[in-house]
Order: sequence, then structure tokens, then C-alpha cells
Amino acid sequence: MAHDMEDSRRRALIGLLTDFGDLDTYVGVMKAIIAGIAPSAAVIDLGHRIRPGDIRQAAFQLWQVADKFPAGSVLVVVVDPGVGTARRAVACQWRQMVLVGPDNGVFTYLLAIESASAAVVLAEPRFHHTPVSATFHGRDIFAPVAAHLAGGTPLKELGPATDGLQQFELPLLERLGADGLSGEVVHVDGFGNLITTLGRLRYDADGCALAPWLPKSEPGVFHGEGAALLPDGFELPLMTTFGDVAPGEPVAYLGSEGLLEIAVRGGSAAERFALTVGAPIQLRFRG
Amino acid sequence: MAHDMEDSRRRALIGLLTDFGDLDTYVGVMKAIIAGIAPSAAVIDLGHRIRPGDIRQAAFQLWQVADKFPAGSVLVVVVDPGVGTARRAVACQWRQMVLVGPDNGVFTYLLAIESASAAVVLAEPRFHHTPVSATFHGRDIFAPVAAHLAGGTPLKELGPATDGLQQFELPLLERLGADGLSGEVVHVDGFGNLITTLGRLRYDADGCALAPWLPKSEPGVFHGEGAALLPDGFELPLMTTFGDVAPGEPVAYLGSEGLLEIAVRGGSAAERFALTVGAPIQLRFRG
Amino acid sequence: MAHDMEDSRRRALIGLLTDFGDLDTYVGVMKAIIAGIAPSAAVIDLGHRIRPGDIRQAAFQLWQVADKFPAGSVLVVVVDPGVGTARRAVACQWRQMVLVGPDNGVFTYLLAIESASAAVVLAEPRFHHTPVSATFHGRDIFAPVAAHLAGGTPLKELGPATDGLQQFELPLLERLGADGLSGEVVHVDGFGNLITTLGRLRYDADGCALAPWLPKSEPGVFHGEGAALLPDGFELPLMTTFGDVAPGEPVAYLGSEGLLEIAVRGGSAAERFALTVGAPIQLRFRG
Repeated sequence: MAHDMEDSRRRALIGLLTDFGDLDTYVGVMKAIIAGIAPSAAVIDLGHRIRPGDIRQAAFQLWQVADKFPAGSVLVVVVDPGVGTARRAVACQWRQMVLVGPDNGVFTYLLAIESASAAVVLAEPRFHHTPVSATFHGRDIFAPVAAHLAGGTPLKELGPATDGLQQFELPLLERLGADGLSGEVVHVDGFGNLITTLGRLRYDADGCALAPWLPKSEPGVFHGEGAALLPDGFELPLMTTFGDVAPGEPVAYLGSEGLLEIAVRGGSAAERFALTVGAPIQLRFRG
Repeated sequence: MAHDMEDSRRRALIGLLTDFGDLDTYVGVMKAIIAGIAPSAAVIDLGHRIRPGDIRQAAFQLWQVADKFPAGSVLVVVVDPGVGTARRAVACQWRQMVLVGPDNGVFTYLLAIESASAAVVLAEPRFHHTPVSATFHGRDIFAPVAAHLAGGTPLKELGPATDGLQQFELPLLERLGADGLSGEVVHVDGFGNLITTLGRLRYDADGCALAPWLPKSEPGVFHGEGAALLPDGFELPLMTTFGDVAPGEPVAYLGSEGLLEIAVRGGSAAERFALTVGAPIQLRFRG
Repeated sequence: MAHDMEDSRRRALIGLLTDFGDLDTYVGVMKAIIAGIAPSAAVIDLGHRIRPGDIRQAAFQLWQVADKFPAGSVLVVVVDPGVGTARRAVACQWRQMVLVGPDNGVFTYLLAIESASAAVVLAEPRFHHTPVSATFHGRDIFAPVAAHLAGGTPLKELGPATDGLQQFELPLLERLGADGLSGEVVHVDGFGNLITTLGRLRYDADGCALAPWLPKSEPGVFHGEGAALLPDGFELPLMTTFGDVAPGEPVAYLGSEGLLEIAVRGGSAAERFALTVGAPIQLRFRG
């Protein structure tokens, strides 16, 4: 095998999350712009099949990936139904990475975990692809800004400092007495698995919390023993993985991000139970 | 953030545009062949969801991206319904980049802007993956040729010079007296936006022209004031962006490539108006 | 054109084949993990649209691409319906590359061509992303292991040696007297082409064999003259390529991997003949 680990230089990483789909060249154009500015940067597709304009889905998917990226990465979100209107284009320092995108709530979950240490409005035209169009800021603002960041341009040069980035209201998660929680489906993945707001806190070294995007100050009590309760009263005891049940059977478990998921082995839970984002789910503790 | 901007070497860029879809390994195989020949080249996916065999759609999408690539890039189009028959495999120098693909019209829009300064038939087997199959020239001819070009092989070594590359007839665009133009839908994008032949010329620094792929000698008169007229008589005043109308409302604007687009905010104009490629659209000037 | 061919270092290559689809960030997360461990490795998507849990389709697609990769590549398959259960996570040396994935049969075709020269169970947690979840070994085991392999970690360090990797029964391929073969559809590609088990052996320099994944000891007699016989008795003489028939007409030919394919020019053979994987196809020799 050929290696070049002796080359310890780290290539700057840019992650792209959009609702551009795969029928057009919009994503390819963004990458061409990036390559022209930062030829040695590596671009990772986080996904381009966000439902058109679905800011909440984009925010959730960004939360799923952000902590997997190495320090110094630039994560770009282009789910931007207000492009060309008064909504602002922004970038912010979040932990050891930079987030770039429209100021419309796409960073909500990450900012609920920890505030941005700095944020700017992307107002400096010398870092844009000009003339800036009214309908494709992914190409004209976000891609070139991400490339300049990957190439070493400091955040503060991109435009004037700001704060008060837009955040939407977090999805439902409530106590149900001493032995339960009430939440909702927050995402349906491509397998038809229902991913909920209920679960463990990833970032808490010695405990758990009610939701991974809430601050540590609200401690949780749940360690994985219990059952999921669906809207029609159907109850599923928690297992470890979907392979723990027979093919075609429904199953509940704590998924790879610590959130309660409901699946059907070899099938689609979303179809089986006719549930989608926003459906109420309860978690009953045991032990 | 870690950088390597001190590394000023530019990696050779290869763009890939095909109708191979995402259900198979055809694109991955092309990339493996490229990596074996030009390991340091970077490959950008321009899209692989061209309708199978749709040469006109491929030509339009290639036109959308070509001028965003840095000088020295190699753009490969594999939409090739005549693979294995008498149609030629070609490469040509177009401005500061090289185009590679079947000689079936996929370069039509680019060649309407500017002729190729050189073109060759890809007849030299030492630059192919042999034995060359009859059905997958993307793998056996176009990918290895692109990799050799990215690696520095001069165009003229790839085969004998040629001219007279195939071009299809450009889509409709006609004067309607002094105050209008008659054109057609040339592309429906993944959002259901209708993109038309009507608009501004991108390449003209001080003016505009009737279509972006026509030479500058035919000057235009349109600067963005006016209305779009749909086949059923529905009229839409031009706005700046789709965010300028209420959700669910239709809107017309000049898109990011300077072409008149018709959209529905948060919806699909193709569905709303039941229009697709070839549908006649008029543009009425005002002011 | 800008080159860096003088840079002869080969970047380590990792190929990814999964059933994760494109609606989620699962593939992007794997790439982020890889980039954190082996920043200079290049990742090639072999495809992420394997039917969920379809081990046989994954094995076939892996067979289609494996010999196109340069020596030293790492090929990762994550089609893993038994994730989190007793099924083993493995890696093996196959020819000059390393295969990584669940021990569930995904390497069947490659191992039918040639046995692995070494195999290990991926039991060393220091090469994993910890804590390892029960449902996403693509992120927690296979991606980091592939990155470490790409970075130079020897196979034997990843865990204890093993043999007896899982293989499923090869699909049907039988003699029909002196002048024919009986096989079946093994794959339907994105164009609707029916790809069968019948064909030439790629790896035999001076001859042919009954199926490309059978050892050379079973010689074949077929050189391309003959006809394909469909289940309903429809017979198609072999041609060179789909462009040899009129648009809309069905055609049979030996595809780019040497396998008999049945297509409809400009259409879908799967739809036209209502056939899918497992449908019996015969090949009648002539000459």
C-alpha cells in the first residue's frame, strides 16, 4: 500500500449541506468556485437532499455531523428560501470550526449546545463571486467565503461583527411525571426510521440529559431501560439494535447519536405507523 | 484552523457530467480509473442525473458550469446514446479548458459562444483503458483521456486533429416587434423552476444580448424591466428573487445565469403550470 | 494547464459502497471520520443506493469495480442488516487491496475469484471511533479502520486473524447440452438494463469461462456469436452495442464486464419484459 502519512499537513475541510438535490449542477458549481479559490481544500458532501427550504431538517442534519469534523473545518449550509431578500448571510465561530450560511435558523441546534464565540455578516464583496446574483448565494457568497476561510482568511475580515443569530423554537420535550418523557419525531431517515427528540446527551461525560441539544444544566435520568409509546398506544420495549427483532418487526432503540429511534427491521417505520416529523412519542423509564 | 495555502501548486481539476444516475458503480469506476492514472487530480461531480441520452440537457448543464471552472480544468460529458457506433469520441480546447466526450452535440452551447481552438478524435489506444468495450466509453476512453490531460498530456497527442464538431440547432429565440421576445423553456431544474432561453448575455461587460450563448454581434435591449407571458396568457411581472412574493405564489425573475426563470415560491412551477422543456414563453419589455 | 505530476506520491484511495442512500448525512459522517484520521486519503463513492440490506447486490457491485482500483486501495462495504448483532466486522487482504466490511457475504464474488490471503476480525478498539454504537458501524468501525489502513496501519494490527469468511451460494449458471447455458438476471442497472450471469471471463488472457467469478478450471466455449432467450421464448441475437438497433428496440450484447446484457435502446428492458433479478435467461451459442 502506498502512503503519505509523513505528509502531516492537514488539508482544510469544507462540508456542504444543501437542498439543491442531484438533478442540477448547483452543487458542482459551488465546488468549482471553491476549487478556484482554495485548490487544496477537500470538500465533503453532507447531503443535498434536504427538503426544499426545510430549515429545521437542515439544522438537525448539521447537528448530526458537526462534532465528527476535525478542528478547523468549515461547514456550509445552503437551505435558503429567503435568498435575495433582507435575510442576512452570516458566518460564525462555533467551537473549533466555522459555520457559514443564511441567518435563518439553520444553526439552531448547534447554538443551543454552545453559543458562537464570534459571528459576522458576510458583507465584504472582495470575498464574493461577483456580481452577486439575487437567487444563488450558495455560488456567489457562501462557497467563496468558505474557500477563503479554508485558505486562512480570518473570520473578522469577512464583514462586520454581529450577534443574535436566528434560532427557531426547539422541538417538544417534556417531563411526564417521574417516569416518563414526552417528545416528538424530529427526523425520518432514508430507511424510514423515526428519530425522536428523546434520548441521551452525548456531551456529558458522566451522565445524561433530556436532549442532546439542551445545556448540561438540565440533567437526565434515563440510561436505556424502558419503552417507547407511539401515538396509538403501541408500546415497544427498548432493544439494542434493529437486528434484535425478527425481520419485519418494529423495534425501538437508542440510535448512534443517543436519540430514541423507532424502526422496522428490513422495512420502514414511517410507512408502518404512518408517522412523520412532529408526531408525538413518549418514553417510559424502567429501572 | 490548519492551512496549506503555502502550497501554491494547483491540483488539476476534472469535472464529470453523465447520465449514469446513482444506482450503479459506473461513476465510481470512472473515478477509480482516473485515480490510477492521475492520483493528484481532483474530480468534481457536475451531475449524473441527466435524463438518459438527453444530449440537449447535458449541453445546457455544461454551459451553466463551464465558466466557473479555473483555467486548465478538464470537463468530461458522458451522455452517449451512440456509444460503440460510428459516432466519434473527441476532445477540444475551449478557451482555457479542455472538453472531452462523444461528438454528438453535448458541447453545442459552449461552441456557440466561442469555437474550439483545436479538436482531436480520441484514437490513440495508449491513452485508453484496454480492451475498449463497446458500451462503456466513459470508463474506457473518456475517463483515462481526461486523467492523462489532467496529468499534462498535450491535446494533440490524443489523436488526429479534426473540426466540424456536431452541434444541434439552438432553441427558439425570436423578436416580437420592438417590445418583446419569444423563447421557450430550456430546462426544468430540481425545484421545478422553469428556465428559459430569454435573458441577458453574461459575457458582455457593458450591455446585454438576446441569449447568453449567442455571439455579441446581436445586441440586446433588455435590462430587467418587464413581464413574462406564459402560454395560457398568464402574465408575471419581473421581480428580483422568488422571496419577493408570498409563499405559494408564482414569480418571474432573471436567474443566476441571467436567464428568465419562472418559479413558485416553496413549490414547483413545472407542476403549477404543467409546462416543460420546449414550452413557449414570451418576454415583454417595459421601460 | 497546471499540473503536479512531478509529485509522484500516490494518495491512498478509499472506495465506499453502502445502502445509506442520499437523504441523510450517514455517508458524510463516514467521510468526516476518515478525514480526521487520514487527511490525505482520497475517497471515491462507489455508490450508496444499494437496496437496503441487499447483500447480493452489494457483492455484485463490488465485483464490478474492484479490479479498476490501483494497488493499495481500501474498499469498504457497509450493507449491514445485522449490525450490532453477533455478525463479525472484518477486513481481508484480497490481491493488492484490502476489503473492509461486515462478514455477511458482501465479498462473495471476489472471494470466488481468489481467496483472501489474510483476514482479521476488527476487534481492536484503538482503531475505532468510540464509544462504538450498536447501529452505525460504518461510522464507528469501518470508516476509521479504512482510514488507518489508508494511513499505513498493517492489517494484522486491526484484530485477531480469522478465516472462513461468509459467502452466499453463487447465482445459477448451468450447461444446456453442447450449445447453450442457463443463467439468470443478476442485476438491473439504473437504465433498466438486465445484466445476467452469462458471459466471458475477464481474467483469462487467452480464453473464456462460463462466469467471470468462477475459477479458470471451468473453461468456457463462448466467444460472442449467439442469441439470448428470455423466459417467454423471446429470442434476441447478440449485437455489439445498444446503438446497433433502432430506438425503442430490444437488444442483447456482451456488456463492459463481459456479461450478457439485455437492453432496450432509449428505454428500460426491465419494464419492457417485466423481469428482475433472478429471472432465468438462456444463452444459445452459434458458430
